[in-house]
Amino acid sequence: MSLVALLFQLTYKPRINTISPVKILIVLANPHKGSFNHAIAESAVRTCEKNGHEVIFHDLYEEDFPAVLPYSEIPKNADIPAVVEKYCRELSRADGIIIIHPNWWGQPPAILKGYIDRVIRPGVAYEFAEGDSGEGIPIGLLPAKAALVFNTANTPAQREIETFGDPLETLWKNCVFALCGIDNFYRRTFSVVVTSSAGQRREWLDEVAAVVKHYFPVA
Amino acid sequence: MSLVALLFQLTYKPRINTISPVKILIVLANPHKGSFNHAIAESAVRTCEKNGHEVIFHDLYEEDFPAVLPYSEIPKNADIPAVVEKYCRELSRADGIIIIHPNWWGQPPAILKGYIDRVIRPGVAYEFAEGDSGEGIPIGLLPAKAALVFNTANTPAQREIETFGDPLETLWKNCVFALCGIDNFYRRTFSVVVTSSAGQRREWLDEVAAVVKHYFPVA
Repeated sequence: MSLVALLFQLTYKPRINTISPVKILIVLANPHKGSFNHAIAESAVRTCEKNGHEVIFHDLYEEDFPAVLPYSEIPKNADIPAVVEKYCRELSRADGIIIIHPNWWGQPPAILKGYIDRVIRPGVAYEFAEGDSGEGIPIGLLPAKAALVFNTANTPAQREIETFGDPLETLWKNCVFALCGIDNFYRRTFSVVVTSSAGQRREWLDEVAAVVKHYFPVA
Repeated sequence: MSLVALLFQLTYKPRINTISPVKILIVLANPHKGSFNHAIAESAVRTCEKNGHEVIFHDLYEEDFPAVLPYSEIPKNADIPAVVEKYCRELSRADGIIIIHPNWWGQPPAILKGYIDRVIRPGVAYEFAEGDSGEGIPIGLLPAKAALVFNTANTPAQREIETFGDPLETLWKNCVFALCGIDNFYRRTFSVVVTSSAGQRREWLDEVAAVVKHYFPVA
């Protein structure tokens, strides 16, 4: 898509209308520091900061995020380790969320799945109505006004949709964000990264900046 | 579904025709030792053993599986730690595969996603044709004749399909097993577990035994 076409399309997308800075939580999961995912994250962080917003940035690999949810943390009122609680507090206060990761098997890397399992937890991101044993429809608790997901892939878009059904779309849009109360959702997959030219990747990074700027405009 | 209806349905499903014992790899991911997932695993293991097959069983939580794929392991010819290599060797020799896990956010728990990321690797489960930089269609390498997935959920089946699109179906069927060369796939989600009666759970375990027995009949 050209930048002009993108901007035209974005015109009809809701954005955060704000005259004051907001908190943007940016979460990155890629094991390679020189990855295109890192470049996307840098573009997103820079755009948010340039627009006057407060950025909370997590590179889950860099931080060695402990990915495996233990049984003891499952109950809503469980004691949560301080390190996980900090991630929860930030998520529950974010006005905007940006997730960046490669498409691995139609899913996020395990370290990011662990972030979902441990941080997007009951009492923080959703809860069940009183009297519900967990079989009902959860109530979303996240106050963020928009969630953006940027993915990279080496599968051509047509094959991703026709052969695999592009599961990342429903995983993030419906299973995670809509369930937690965030309906204003935008996702973009950049592919094929492995054979892309430097020029193509520069255009993609400009596109990231344009999307982020649209959703989180100048404070 | 009644057991009779199930057996009728299974009649038309391909099964391993064998007169000798086969190797069945069973992988379980649930942090609670008393979980219904553990009961499913026990039923699957017992059925395979009763039918004379060799069972390789992994309880990923019990084994503290190291879930996070490091950058160094991504290349096809990377040096793989001995602990991961053992899992790879078993996978590449399994005649049948059974996966058991709860539906967490339309996905497996992070520890099992880590098993996918690290064990279902290039050179073991799939490879690219010569001259392909990784953007082409991989060639499946797994020799297993059938893969079964048993899931548990607290979301009613209709909501899982209508609201979320039941992403676990395409994740396991298309993104993982078909890509790795296994087209003979069967998946069953038991739901709603949290409000199920003891009688219902006993029926479900009988169903697990019937399915496993169908796919991996007496040696």
